[in-house]
Amino acid sequence: MTVPDKHILLMDGPDSKGLIYHVTGVLFRRNLNIIHNDEYVSPSGRFFMRTEFEGTLDSAALLSELQTELPNSSDHTIDDAHVLPDKPENVAGQSGITFRLNPKRKKNIVVMVTKEHHCLGELLIRYAFDELDADILAVVSNYNLLQPLVSKFGIPFHYISHEGKTRDEHEEAILRTMAIYEPEYVVLAKYMRVLTAGFVDNFPNRIINIHHSFLPAFVGANPYRQAYERGVKIIGATAHFVNNDLDEGPIIAQNVKEVDHRHTATDMSTEGKDVEKIVLSQALKLVFNDRVFISGNRAIIL
Amino acid sequence: MTVPDKHILLMDGPDSKGLIYHVTGVLFRRNLNIIHNDEYVSPSGRFFMRTEFEGTLDSAALLSELQTELPNSSDHTIDDAHVLPDKPENVAGQSGITFRLNPKRKKNIVVMVTKEHHCLGELLIRYAFDELDADILAVVSNYNLLQPLVSKFGIPFHYISHEGKTRDEHEEAILRTMAIYEPEYVVLAKYMRVLTAGFVDNFPNRIINIHHSFLPAFVGANPYRQAYERGVKIIGATAHFVNNDLDEGPIIAQNVKEVDHRHTATDMSTEGKDVEKIVLSQALKLVFNDRVFISGNRAIIL
Amino acid sequence: MTVPDKHILLMDGPDSKGLIYHVTGVLFRRNLNIIHNDEYVSPSGRFFMRTEFEGTLDSAALLSELQTELPNSSDHTIDDAHVLPDKPENVAGQSGITFRLNPKRKKNIVVMVTKEHHCLGELLIRYAFDELDADILAVVSNYNLLQPLVSKFGIPFHYISHEGKTRDEHEEAILRTMAIYEPEYVVLAKYMRVLTAGFVDNFPNRIINIHHSFLPAFVGANPYRQAYERGVKIIGATAHFVNNDLDEGPIIAQNVKEVDHRHTATDMSTEGKDVEKIVLSQALKLVFNDRVFISGNRAIIL
Amino acid sequence: MTVPDKHILLMDGPDSKGLIYHVTGVLFRRNLNIIHNDEYVSPSGRFFMRTEFEGTLDSAALLSELQTELPNSSDHTIDDAHVLPDKPENVAGQSGITFRLNPKRKKNIVVMVTKEHHCLGELLIRYAFDELDADILAVVSNYNLLQPLVSKFGIPFHYISHEGKTRDEHEEAILRTMAIYEPEYVVLAKYMRVLTAGFVDNFPNRIINIHHSFLPAFVGANPYRQAYERGVKIIGATAHFVNNDLDEGPIIAQNVKEVDHRHTATDMSTEGKDVEKIVLSQALKLVFNDRVFISGNRAIIL
Repeated sequence: MTVPDKHILLMDGPDSKGLIYHVTGVLFRRNLNIIHNDEYVSPSGRFFMRTEFEGTLDSAALLSELQTELPNSSDHTIDDAHVLPDKPENVAGQSGITFRLNPKRKKNIVVMVTKEHHCLGELLIRYAFDELDADILAVVSNYNLLQPLVSKFGIPFHYISHEGKTRDEHEEAILRTMAIYEPEYVVLAKYMRVLTAGFVDNFPNRIINIHHSFLPAFVGANPYRQAYERGVKIIGATAHFVNNDLDEGPIIAQNVKEVDHRHTATDMSTEGKDVEKIVLSQALKLVFNDRVFISGNRAIIL
Repeated sequence: MTVPDKHILLMDGPDSKGLIYHVTGVLFRRNLNIIHNDEYVSPSGRFFMRTEFEGTLDSAALLSELQTELPNSSDHTIDDAHVLPDKPENVAGQSGITFRLNPKRKKNIVVMVTKEHHCLGELLIRYAFDELDADILAVVSNYNLLQPLVSKFGIPFHYISHEGKTRDEHEEAILRTMAIYEPEYVVLAKYMRVLTAGFVDNFPNRIINIHHSFLPAFVGANPYRQAYERGVKIIGATAHFVNNDLDEGPIIAQNVKEVDHRHTATDMSTEGKDVEKIVLSQALKLVFNDRVFISGNRAIIL
Repeated sequence: MTVPDKHILLMDGPDSKGLIYHVTGVLFRRNLNIIHNDEYVSPSGRFFMRTEFEGTLDSAALLSELQTELPNSSDHTIDDAHVLPDKPENVAGQSGITFRLNPKRKKNIVVMVTKEHHCLGELLIRYAFDELDADILAVVSNYNLLQPLVSKFGIPFHYISHEGKTRDEHEEAILRTMAIYEPEYVVLAKYMRVLTAGFVDNFPNRIINIHHSFLPAFVGANPYRQAYERGVKIIGATAHFVNNDLDEGPIIAQNVKEVDHRHTATDMSTEGKDVEKIVLSQALKLVFNDRVFISGNRAIIL
Repeated sequence: MTVPDKHILLMDGPDSKGLIYHVTGVLFRRNLNIIHNDEYVSPSGRFFMRTEFEGTLDSAALLSELQTELPNSSDHTIDDAHVLPDKPENVAGQSGITFRLNPKRKKNIVVMVTKEHHCLGELLIRYAFDELDADILAVVSNYNLLQPLVSKFGIPFHYISHEGKTRDEHEEAILRTMAIYEPEYVVLAKYMRVLTAGFVDNFPNRIINIHHSFLPAFVGANPYRQAYERGVKIIGATAHFVNNDLDEGPIIAQNVKEVDHRHTATDMSTEGKDVEKIVLSQALKLVFNDRVFISGNRAIIL
C-alpha cells in the first residue's frame, strides 16, 4: 500500500534513552526524509514526539518496525496522558509507546453556533479560501439567525432549536445530525449552551470550544460582565478541548487585550470578539495539523 | 498662604451637568493654567476628574470657591465609591462632590518584603536615581535575607521575624515600626504573609500589593504551580490595593507573558518575575502621581 | 433646523486659557449633555478637543455661538496641523480655532483590493452585521479574483484591470467609478499598487491604507521578505492615512506579533494577515467615529 | 579527561539525511542522557542542533567519534553562516559540520555603559543574586556617573573618558582594560558611542548591544525622538550582536510597548527603558546558555 507524500508520526509514551535514535534510524534506513521533528519530555517522564517527514511508504510495515526492539521503559512512571483518537492504522507498542501515523490532510468538521457571528464568519472566510486546514461539512445552531450567512458559503445549516425540548432531546437531535456527517472534530464557535457529559463522550478530545475569558479567570456565564465588575485591566479568550467539566478541558491557545476603566462590559465584549476569533483560528490550525497532544489536563503543542 | 507651582485637583462625586464648566471657570478666573485634564463618568453616574494645573494659589480659598454654587446633583444615584485618604486641606462639598487638592510632590513609603529580591531591587534602583516618585523611608521584612541589598542603598532595614510570635504579635511589631515612619503608602513587594483585616484597617486604600498571577485567576498560594497544572498559555502579574479580602482589592495594573508547555512551574516563576516588577513599578507610578481613584472594587485611572 | 440626538464637536487650533471653560459653558447653557469629552494639547501648543454630547440643537446657531468671544490666541504658535475634511456646516473661528460639528452617523466608503481576501473578508462580515460604522458602497479591484466573495454580500464589484493601461489611465478609470459613489473615505484593504499624488489629492486625508509591517520598518515592497532577511523577532501591521509619500502618512493604529527564526517569509505573511485585518478594522472604527485628528504627520486620537 | 556533569553540544553545517540519528546514536552508545534537544534546518539547507545532555565524558573522544562516518553532505548548498567563537576543544568535521562541546557554566563578561543606569542596574541586581548566568568582571564607562552604583556591588569600575582623545586612542585605552579581564562577551548596556570596526574585530560575535527601537525602525541616534515625530503607536527595543555596520547585527531579542499621541519623546524614553532592560536580560540569558547560533545576519535560537 502506498500513501501520499507527506506524513506525520506522533509518538507518546514513557521516556527512555534512545527513543529519538530508534525512530530516526528507522526513518533513515527507509529513505524517509525528516522535514521537521520536535519532541518533549514532561517533568513526570512522559515522552512526546511529532515527526513530519516525506517519502513513499508502506504504513503498516513502518509502524510494525517502529514497535520492534524499542528501548525498555519498564522503570518509568507514566503520567495520566490521554491520546488523541487513533486512526485504524495506529497501534500501541509493547513498550507503552503509542505510535500514530497520519497522512498530512485536511480534517472534516462540524461547527456549532448560537447567535454570534464573529467566530463563524472567520471560519467561513478561511474555509472559502482554503486556509482552514479543514472542510466544514455543516453548521448546527439552536437559532436560525446565522442561516443567511452560512448559506452565502453553500454549507448545510441545521437549525435545531432547543425550545420545547429537554436537554437530552435536544442533544439527541444534534447527535442524529452529527451522525450524517461523522465529523472528526466538532468546533463550538460561540455555542452558548452547556453540553452534557453524555454528549461530550461521543467526541472524546474532539470538541474544541472558544471561551471568552483568559481561563481559569471568569469561568461560567457572562465573563465580560464579571471582568468589568472585577475591574481587570486585561481581557482575553481561551480555546480549549471540552471535557465533562465545563471550561476545564486542556487549553490549546489563549490571547489577551488591554482594557481600562472606560470599557463597559459591552465594550469589552465588542473588543474581545477580535481576540476570540483569532485565538479559535490559531487553536484549530494547531489541532488540524496534528500538533496537539493531550497530557492529563495540559495540551502539549509540538 | 502660597504653595508650590504645580497642583493636582481631584474631584469625585455624583455627576451633573456643568461640572467641568464650573471647575474650569474657577481656575480660569484665578489665572491658573490647566496642563492636563481628564474626566470619567461611570455607568452608574459617578463623576471623576483629575486636573493638573500650575500657578500660585491660596489652597483654602480655591477649595472654598470650588464648593460654592456647584450644580445640583440631588437626583443622581451614587455608587459605592471610596476615596483615597484626604489631606487636611481637602473638604467635601455640600453637593456630594469631594475635592482634594494636592501639591505635586513625592510620597513617603515603607516597603515590605519576604525573601525575593526582584521587586525590591527594582524599587531600590529607581529610588537611587530619583525615578520612583517616592522616598523609601524603610524596608520591613520577616526574613533578614535582603538586608545586605537594602544596606547598599543606605535605607533602614527592619528585620521583624514572625518566628515564635502569634500573627497579632507579629503585626503589632510591624505597626510599631510603621509608627516611626508614618508612611503614606505601604508597598508589599513580594511580602508573602497574609495581613489581617486589623492590620489593613490602619492603611485604608494605602497598601499596594503585587500578586503573581493575572487575577482573578489563581488566587492564593503558589499561582505559578496552579498555572502549570492548569496548562495555561499565559501567565501574568497584578498590582492591586489590599483590602480585607485577600487578593480581592481594586486592580491598578496587570500584564502578561506567553508561556508554553515546556515551562515548568519554576520556569514560569523565573520569567514571571520580570512581569511582576515592571507591573508593580507602573502601578506605583500611577498611585504616587495621584492618578488612581477607587470606585467600589474598581480603580479609575485618570 | 433640528438634527439627530447624538453629536460630535471637534475643535482644533492654537491653545489658550479657558477654551474648555468656553465650550462647556456654551453647551451647558443650551442644555446639551456632554457624554464624553477628551482634549489634548500638543507640545507645540495646539489644542484638540472632541466632545460627544446629546440633545436637540440648531447646528448653525451653536457653531456661531461657539465662535463668538473665544479667548484670544494671538500670541500662540501654531504647528503644521491639517484637519479632516470639513462638512458644509463647519466654519473656522476668527481665533484660529476650527470647529466641526458632526451628527453621529455611519460613513460612506469604497474599498479597494487586489488579490488578498483577508482584510476584505473582515470588512464584509462586519458590514453584513452592521458593525463597521460605515456603508460599503462598492469594491474596486485591479483583479477579478475577489468578485465571488463580494457578490455573496450583494455589493457592487468594479473590476478595473491595470493591464494595457498607463498608470494615469488606470487611475482615471478608478476615479470615474469613485465619482459614481462619492465616498467619504477610500479604504485600501491590501490594494497593492502605488497611487499617484494626483489620485491621492482627490481624497485628502480620506484614504486609509493597511501596510504589512510596523512602519517605518520595512517601507516598500515585500516587507515580510525583508523581515525574514533582517531576522526580526517581531512582525506587525500599520494602518495609516495615505499622502503623497508612500507609506509615510499619519499612523492611526499598529499592532505586532512575535515570530522566531522558524518562520519563513511565507509563514510571516500568513500569520501577519491576522494582525493586518484587525489593525485595519480598529483604525477604521476610530476614523469612522470622528476620533482622529491629523497634526502634521501625527494622528491624534481622542 | 573528565568534565562536569551537564554539557551542551552545538552542531552547525550542511543538512543531510541521518544527522540526528548519527548524533543521538553516539550519545546513546556512550550512555549519555539527552535532557533537551532542538534542531533547525534553514530554508537554504543549513542544519543547526543544540543538544543538552548529562553524564561523565571524555570530550576529545566524544568529538572525535561524532566526526567519524558522518553522512555525506557534498551535494548541499551552505549559506553564509558564522559560528560563535570556538573553544579549544572544538573541531570542525570533514563533512562541513562544526561541532562545539561546552560544559554548562557561567560566562565571563565586561559591561560598558555611558550615563544611563537602568540596564546596568538590572544586570547588577541579577548578578548579585546569581541570576545572570555570567560573572561581571568589570564595568567600563566613558563617564564616571555610574561609579557609585557599581561600587555598591563590589565590581571594578573603569572610567575611561573620551575627552581629549581621538576615537582610536579611546578605544585602545578600552582594549587595554579588556586585556586585563579577557571577557568572553562584552555587553553594551546603553554605551552611547559608536564602536569602530577595528574595535569590534577583537570580539567577533561577542559584543551584545541594546538598541532603543524595534530595529530596523529608527536606526541611529535619538530613536525615541524619531518615533515621536513619526507618530508611531508602538515603541520597542532590540538586543543584537554588534558587527561592523551599526545597528545591523543579528537580532537576538525584541519587545515592544504601546504608546499614543500623548507620549512625548521623553515619555517614550522613560517607558522604553523598562522594555530595554528586560529585552537585554532575555537576550543575555539566551547567549550565556549557548542557545544562539548566527547564520548570516539572522540569529537562530535553539
